[in-house]
Amino acid sequence: MVKMRDWVEEINERARTKLGIGRVADYIPALAERDANKFGIAICTNEGEIYAAGDALEPFSIQSISKVFLLTLSLRVYGNALWERVGLNPSGMPFNSLTQLEAERGKPRNPFINAGAIVVADRLVSAFATPSKHLQDVARKLSGNESILIDRRVLESEWQHRSRNAAMAYLMKAFDNIDNDVDHVLHSYFSCCSLSMSCIDLAIALNYLAADGHAHATGEPFIAPDLARRINSIMVTSGMYDAAGDFAYRVGLPAKSGVGGGIVAIVPGKFSVCAWSPALDENGNSVAAQYALELLASEMDARLGR
Amino acid sequence: MVKMRDWVEEINERARTKLGIGRVADYIPALAERDANKFGIAICTNEGEIYAAGDALEPFSIQSISKVFLLTLSLRVYGNALWERVGLNPSGMPFNSLTQLEAERGKPRNPFINAGAIVVADRLVSAFATPSKHLQDVARKLSGNESILIDRRVLESEWQHRSRNAAMAYLMKAFDNIDNDVDHVLHSYFSCCSLSMSCIDLAIALNYLAADGHAHATGEPFIAPDLARRINSIMVTSGMYDAAGDFAYRVGLPAKSGVGGGIVAIVPGKFSVCAWSPALDENGNSVAAQYALELLASEMDARLGR
Amino acid sequence: MVKMRDWVEEINERARTKLGIGRVADYIPALAERDANKFGIAICTNEGEIYAAGDALEPFSIQSISKVFLLTLSLRVYGNALWERVGLNPSGMPFNSLTQLEAERGKPRNPFINAGAIVVADRLVSAFATPSKHLQDVARKLSGNESILIDRRVLESEWQHRSRNAAMAYLMKAFDNIDNDVDHVLHSYFSCCSLSMSCIDLAIALNYLAADGHAHATGEPFIAPDLARRINSIMVTSGMYDAAGDFAYRVGLPAKSGVGGGIVAIVPGKFSVCAWSPALDENGNSVAAQYALELLASEMDARLGR
Amino acid sequence: MVKMRDWVEEINERARTKLGIGRVADYIPALAERDANKFGIAICTNEGEIYAAGDALEPFSIQSISKVFLLTLSLRVYGNALWERVGLNPSGMPFNSLTQLEAERGKPRNPFINAGAIVVADRLVSAFATPSKHLQDVARKLSGNESILIDRRVLESEWQHRSRNAAMAYLMKAFDNIDNDVDHVLHSYFSCCSLSMSCIDLAIALNYLAADGHAHATGEPFIAPDLARRINSIMVTSGMYDAAGDFAYRVGLPAKSGVGGGIVAIVPGKFSVCAWSPALDENGNSVAAQYALELLASEMDARLGR
Repeated sequence: MVKMRDWVEEINERARTKLGIGRVADYIPALAERDANKFGIAICTNEGEIYAAGDALEPFSIQSISKVFLLTLSLRVYGNALWERVGLNPSGMPFNSLTQLEAERGKPRNPFINAGAIVVADRLVSAFATPSKHLQDVARKLSGNESILIDRRVLESEWQHRSRNAAMAYLMKAFDNIDNDVDHVLHSYFSCCSLSMSCIDLAIALNYLAADGHAHATGEPFIAPDLARRINSIMVTSGMYDAAGDFAYRVGLPAKSGVGGGIVAIVPGKFSVCAWSPALDENGNSVAAQYALELLASEMDARLGR
Repeated sequence: MVKMRDWVEEINERARTKLGIGRVADYIPALAERDANKFGIAICTNEGEIYAAGDALEPFSIQSISKVFLLTLSLRVYGNALWERVGLNPSGMPFNSLTQLEAERGKPRNPFINAGAIVVADRLVSAFATPSKHLQDVARKLSGNESILIDRRVLESEWQHRSRNAAMAYLMKAFDNIDNDVDHVLHSYFSCCSLSMSCIDLAIALNYLAADGHAHATGEPFIAPDLARRINSIMVTSGMYDAAGDFAYRVGLPAKSGVGGGIVAIVPGKFSVCAWSPALDENGNSVAAQYALELLASEMDARLGR
Repeated sequence: MVKMRDWVEEINERARTKLGIGRVADYIPALAERDANKFGIAICTNEGEIYAAGDALEPFSIQSISKVFLLTLSLRVYGNALWERVGLNPSGMPFNSLTQLEAERGKPRNPFINAGAIVVADRLVSAFATPSKHLQDVARKLSGNESILIDRRVLESEWQHRSRNAAMAYLMKAFDNIDNDVDHVLHSYFSCCSLSMSCIDLAIALNYLAADGHAHATGEPFIAPDLARRINSIMVTSGMYDAAGDFAYRVGLPAKSGVGGGIVAIVPGKFSVCAWSPALDENGNSVAAQYALELLASEMDARLGR
Repeated sequence: MVKMRDWVEEINERARTKLGIGRVADYIPALAERDANKFGIAICTNEGEIYAAGDALEPFSIQSISKVFLLTLSLRVYGNALWERVGLNPSGMPFNSLTQLEAERGKPRNPFINAGAIVVADRLVSAFATPSKHLQDVARKLSGNESILIDRRVLESEWQHRSRNAAMAYLMKAFDNIDNDVDHVLHSYFSCCSLSMSCIDLAIALNYLAADGHAHATGEPFIAPDLARRINSIMVTSGMYDAAGDFAYRVGLPAKSGVGGGIVAIVPGKFSVCAWSPALDENGNSVAAQYALELLASEMDARLGR
């Protein structure tokens, strides 16, 4: 598909004009030292074609993109019972705020804010001996890349700077919404955040959200079609931190970002895409990756036909 | 299109099993006396076909559905400059809360909470002598129904019970985000909320959101295609009061509800739909109308083909 | 009492070293134009002796000091029933915040924040045709000064800038905690704030709080002794806006300040004092008047004997 | 002083009419099992006379009364530099709330809410190897009772139920307002809360607050007179949890309560008093002990002369 290949190259070039804007996440040293001039993009179509450009093969810390995996795995185990522990609605507050969590008695608004993902991690700790090992296995299988690893340096750094996440976890524990030992849950959660994957890995691994739950790499159904549709809906309302509405207005695709600079977006029925560049805007979303997705969404109809 | 006709009839029958659940809005007498056993549904396809069942011809108070009209008219006048006055992101708080409004210095989160719609009404008061008259004209033209009226009894009742909305308007005025006289702005806002329209009126009038901005009844472009797409995005993230995420998870369509019991939803590229039944759940959304839309969304692929 | 006279002169001189620090209130023009270099102080002992220095005879806008009069008059009419409408505890939030008021369903924390004083004013509107006229009469009688007036220019300016107070009043109305017309209540409230009195007027008028409820100027009991003690307690916990605890720590006396620059403090059993200087700190309390009261409190034992 | 002895006996009898009202703290088992029918009261005059009645010799868990000791010890070490870490103003929120702590970037409002006392404990951990051992020594010296002990069962129980306090401590650590290891600080804090002392112990030990900082049992100055006055001021504005203003209105004395059922109050220049009864009102203050102090305050002038 020649025109897709050209288009991805063109987006790569245009998105790189945004390099130099924004700031690399610096709350932990292991993230702060990433080169702000990197940019990569990869598309995985539902037919299994891969189109990639720029630094699309370079692994980066997936950070909050792991929340999509955590949610998917937990829904596979618990189904709708999961929603007794975590809500479904936009938070309207910063992703690591305790105020709403206290007012709502320890039930986080949704699985894509930190508190929500920690609750989901606690659910997985109850179900699997080592959830991060399980998630690593799943990420390898879904992407077909057996070399995917947890970055121990990032993990150690996250653990050292765990105070705010620990505050949230203990607050939820005080409301009986964490079943397991707080330190154990946090360690599992940070391990998942510390997975290193490339744009190509992520575009392939999360293609099941574009393909009605069908996993491209394994050739098997990974989740039910309605579940894929529903996870996409949560990505629309809550996937981009505080900027969910703004991103929905500009781009209009289900998406999930991480402070490592990656953003995954879904075009249901068509393809999954991952863009990455380390420098972030004030909402914690990659400047160049957002711009790439904005270009992609606004030109999609014209380039690919409706 | 026989199967569409049958399907709408079937949804009408199944949704009526929910009659008896929920409570009719009773904050003003004019709404409280509506018969809780009414239910109607109407679909308007982008080809101009109308499929309707139940009480689809009965006018009801559109209430917050007017916020979609207010937003559209204001974007037509001000374009993106509107977003200097009102945000784009989900609120995460009740639709009439003052707490967030105070913390964010009088800039409402989005145009679909009351404070946001009041700011939009203030913008229209600056642009039109009588915005509610203008909106009534537009609603008539878009629906092709010249008998659409503002319900004076509802309007009077809203005015009598204006205290909380007045509190929000004065707070925004204190932050210089309301330019005109507060009483005048509120009266215009309540007039728009007090329009009476039927399911058929609304499905036809708002079809431009399904049809890339093209107005079915007038045969002319009403707004630009990208603007239609963007308004739909705000409806996804913020259209269903506090339950936006929950509704997105279950139904997955752009939608806007009103405490009169109506809900409009959009299937972009295909059709607009309006369901109505007066009894509401605790979030202020019609129980039976939500159920009807849930049936419609979950069976759409099977019934209509993808 | 020669040493008292010398001491007050000395405080006057030392407090004037603080002139030039802080900012005159500028939210309304009528206050903004006051000369920041004014300073006055007056003491009224329970024996009726007056010691004054500096600009102690110059009338200024009493602003929030009127809340002490409003509370006293309302307790005289309603007794403890007043506490069904307004609380007794420190607010911990800015004096004009709506957040707490919303969370606590329209019942203000205490009568010394704006919302609380507006509720008290509503109580007085229910009891007196013109509460501000009544308050002016009481202020004249208690101070023995028949020339005390409401400053119409200040009143007009307050009314023009009423938006935030109107927001609070309408919010309380929405919770049924305001019985009368909001505009009427606000006008009465602003009228009371707009009284002009001098340091000497205020020290004499509020001496009843130092003298177990006995009014110096009239020679009669004005309120019961335990009521005087209780009003003093509210002044300790809530009299100095956000800085109540800080002021209690540094000065330790019941006090009430106003953005006109006046502060009244009480030494129970001994004397009342009023200091005034227009420039305010970031909490809205007069810099030089606070300093004068700090000097007075810290040296009182040494100067006057215990 | 015969009349004092009779009066204390009388208060004992009258306060016991309140036994049966309220609930014993049950968040930890060690507190929950205390007999709700206990009541004791002890007064220690500045001349060193002790008047006691009821269960005044029975040790109970001092809980938050330890915050007065923590504050005093920390002010002795750090002086006013302490106020860079913790504020001085009333909180206006529940004693264990995280919302305000987050909004104010980890600086607690005052040293008498839990977060504030944890910060003070962290200061003492920096100054002393084992702050709870130091506090136990001080409590023994000040009360002249060498048998005062930390209740290990209470301590263990507090530790098991530490989640909410841990959440607060980690949140403050996230804002760099805790210097030491969170577990170590919490353990020290709980140890201090777990001291067991009787009404007589506490009345004697805290008499320095009534006696210008002079310690009755040691015959030596313990803190400077102005520091004693200032600690009393914080007790007035913030000593009774959420009910500080209400208590100030009814009783008007500096006081500090604990969920073990004890309340210490100060009559500056005259005496210190401790009342105790395990059953608490909804604010966490002992019902019978509060009533005893209310009787004491309202009759003090009549009984003892002014």
